[in-house]
Amino acid sequence: MNKMMKFARLFLLILLTGCMIALPDYTEAQSLKLKQKDGMLEFATPKREKGQTDVLQLRCDPIPVVRVAFIGLGMRGSMAVDRFTHLDGVEVVALCDVRPEYVQQAQNRLKNAGLPAAQEFTGAEDWKKVCELDNVDLIYNCTPWLLHTPIAVYAMEHGKHVAIEVPAAMSIEECWQLVNTAEKTRRHCMMLENCCYDFFEMATLNMAQQGLFGEIMHVEGAYIHDLRSLNLDDKTGYYDMWRLKYNTIHTGNPYPTHGLGPVCQVLNIHRGDKMDYLVSVSSAQKGLSVAAAEKFGKDSEYTQTDYALGDMNTTLIRTHKGKTIMIQHDVTSPRPYDRLHKISGTKGFAQKYPTEGIALEPNAHSFLPKEQMDSLMARYEHPIAREIGEKAREVGGHGGMDFMMDYRLIYCLRNGLPLDQDVYDAAEWSSLVELTETSVKHNGMPVRIPDFTRGAWDRVNGFSHAVAQPK
Amino acid sequence: MNKMMKFARLFLLILLTGCMIALPDYTEAQSLKLKQKDGMLEFATPKREKGQTDVLQLRCDPIPVVRVAFIGLGMRGSMAVDRFTHLDGVEVVALCDVRPEYVQQAQNRLKNAGLPAAQEFTGAEDWKKVCELDNVDLIYNCTPWLLHTPIAVYAMEHGKHVAIEVPAAMSIEECWQLVNTAEKTRRHCMMLENCCYDFFEMATLNMAQQGLFGEIMHVEGAYIHDLRSLNLDDKTGYYDMWRLKYNTIHTGNPYPTHGLGPVCQVLNIHRGDKMDYLVSVSSAQKGLSVAAAEKFGKDSEYTQTDYALGDMNTTLIRTHKGKTIMIQHDVTSPRPYDRLHKISGTKGFAQKYPTEGIALEPNAHSFLPKEQMDSLMARYEHPIAREIGEKAREVGGHGGMDFMMDYRLIYCLRNGLPLDQDVYDAAEWSSLVELTETSVKHNGMPVRIPDFTRGAWDRVNGFSHAVAQPK
Repeated sequence: MNKMMKFARLFLLILLTGCMIALPDYTEAQSLKLKQKDGMLEFATPKREKGQTDVLQLRCDPIPVVRVAFIGLGMRGSMAVDRFTHLDGVEVVALCDVRPEYVQQAQNRLKNAGLPAAQEFTGAEDWKKVCELDNVDLIYNCTPWLLHTPIAVYAMEHGKHVAIEVPAAMSIEECWQLVNTAEKTRRHCMMLENCCYDFFEMATLNMAQQGLFGEIMHVEGAYIHDLRSLNLDDKTGYYDMWRLKYNTIHTGNPYPTHGLGPVCQVLNIHRGDKMDYLVSVSSAQKGLSVAAAEKFGKDSEYTQTDYALGDMNTTLIRTHKGKTIMIQHDVTSPRPYDRLHKISGTKGFAQKYPTEGIALEPNAHSFLPKEQMDSLMARYEHPIAREIGEKAREVGGHGGMDFMMDYRLIYCLRNGLPLDQDVYDAAEWSSLVELTETSVKHNGMPVRIPDFTRGAWDRVNGFSHAVAQPK
Repeated sequence: MNKMMKFARLFLLILLTGCMIALPDYTEAQSLKLKQKDGMLEFATPKREKGQTDVLQLRCDPIPVVRVAFIGLGMRGSMAVDRFTHLDGVEVVALCDVRPEYVQQAQNRLKNAGLPAAQEFTGAEDWKKVCELDNVDLIYNCTPWLLHTPIAVYAMEHGKHVAIEVPAAMSIEECWQLVNTAEKTRRHCMMLENCCYDFFEMATLNMAQQGLFGEIMHVEGAYIHDLRSLNLDDKTGYYDMWRLKYNTIHTGNPYPTHGLGPVCQVLNIHRGDKMDYLVSVSSAQKGLSVAAAEKFGKDSEYTQTDYALGDMNTTLIRTHKGKTIMIQHDVTSPRPYDRLHKISGTKGFAQKYPTEGIALEPNAHSFLPKEQMDSLMARYEHPIAREIGEKAREVGGHGGMDFMMDYRLIYCLRNGLPLDQDVYDAAEWSSLVELTETSVKHNGMPVRIPDFTRGAWDRVNGFSHAVAQPK
């Protein structure tokens, strides 16, 4: 049976890999050595090289006009180019995608906005040329998952700051590559975790920071989003079905950051607390098979494939200070979209789905009635949302959060400030990809979460958004 | 620090134990031998004695009029007596509580309903006398947690059927005592998991059984209920603060069954599937300390005590067939009441909180609008709710579910039918008490869930409510 499954996976892989350009090898393990100690699995932590120091609160020289190159112009990249036409202090200088028509569409966006054309790149390895350009400050990387880290590392090595779509890395080895390269090159490496900029997430972060929920003990996040049709469609879905290929051979939670990012900011992870260990359990897989049978018939290879990714993955994390985080991933079940975003403290509670609700002492047994809720949300609107929220809603991108993210990225680069999300956030949040898979494969055994700051997790006192001093 | 904590707990225990009657020793471990094997913790399974067989689908002689004795007349017991005055085919023959005034109040309930007085028992060990009575068919046990199993075992040994408040047992050793005693004596042992009889839970069970959600892959349940004031009040709260004492020295999920029971019925646990293993993680404790400080001041022993029970416990269970169950427990945080009750299948989704919602293919990305939801709920109303729901709502008890539970218990006893919840349900659902604590204490290590049927978990084909044949 097991052999048959492996054969089926291999067959699908061969079938799907007959594409014109080389995507990374989805069977590649890239795993660091795993050891078991006191009932806990642990990846070895590489030593920091002599002379290399951390990049906590990294400040680089201000860049008055940020010259940006986009690599990957699919769903996320093309929307990003569009948003950048609404930003001050940026120049889109290069566009790169293996599909020439996508580059052309992006050029048209620039043209329609009255902006100069960007340099075009369409070769399979052209991302290297883009990283090597002299007139680029920032690489904006919206490629398939397994290209995120290779491009980011190459970009930093060529002196560029880099912004990477989520997850920034797909293995612990890649997480360390990002951290070590950022530390060596002193370049910014920001993962584009847009959910940190959603209006409700930002408001509840503001409330948490002002103590409204008391001491926060437990938080939850999720990515529950039925992506079966995108996974199973090589025309309108992911390029060359890269996501399906990944899901065919990987289990755990391959996409943990949308739920995790915002609650890690609430808990001040590596700014006074750190994630210690996790346990992770996945259900069996049925959702993709059922959808494939409906779309392609029961005898199709897509239906017969034994996808490794379980329908539901649930992960529990415990932090050094004894807080717990629950993170879920389900992209193959028919359910309403849900990122949970629950925050539970000693004085109050918030949850985002199915409708935004907040409950506060001394009446925390009921959610606030609409009028009080509206007034509270107005009072605690995040300063960044207050500053740019109206324009963000106009520009759009998941209701505005994508624009606020881009705005902050450019604002910090222009002002020489630390970015909102640093390379340790990218590594910590992305590390769940391999850590959860490791736990799932060991029947939920606890796995230690690496301290990517290598000891400096409590040096910064609380999460904050950097603000430029008035001149 | 650890020593100080132990000392503080001991101090509180001595302080609280100066009460007139003997409650069970809350420090008693009662643990079976625990072994570690292949990264999984496992309690030894005791061998079944020669000649002893299982009690799956147990049928006993019909009892035309069920003679009931109530032991424990606190919050749950007194309400149960009240409900029994509305049931046909029962006689309340004995009332037992260490507080004479509670016995008197229960007598008054009988009197007001025009029923004959019951025999009274108020001694600390009188529960034994009650179990020994000749004129009793059913012991209805609503005592503090640590008396549940001792009384149930003694009752069965004296030929009585027994209904036990949740959890039925507080350790794996006690779970096996219930199973072995029921198997030896061939008596019914039902845990009173009332949430299995809530209208929404029953409707979604009916939907699940009729295939509305497709194959169910993941379910969730919880007991999130701020009980801090009940825990910290020796007048209006739990008798002799028994729950606080338990929470002072135990962690994990001590009260898992309200969330777990209904979803185990949905998944046909020990009726075609079984729970294989769990992992469990608790947050640190703050909620009780914060509440105690507010009530008693910061220097009070209650405030200074280092309660073992974490504010939030989350547990992940994987079944033999690859389904996952997520169960939470939080009784010390200011939050709206929540039992989750989420059901996720290949064709649809349901959740009970904060408002009941169902989403079905092909439009599962949104919850059904009100009109369709109402119509669906009416169509799938559970047959038992249709039969007795109206009366249940009149009688009350958590909106009617308690009465439906009592009604079914008596109906099955009168008709000689298997009970809805058998001793294996009681053991399985209650086993989480010690299994979760064990996992939490080992940093979330997986713990094997015992098969209390000892191999017969797939003999019964699906969960069902027994119905009498028309005469």
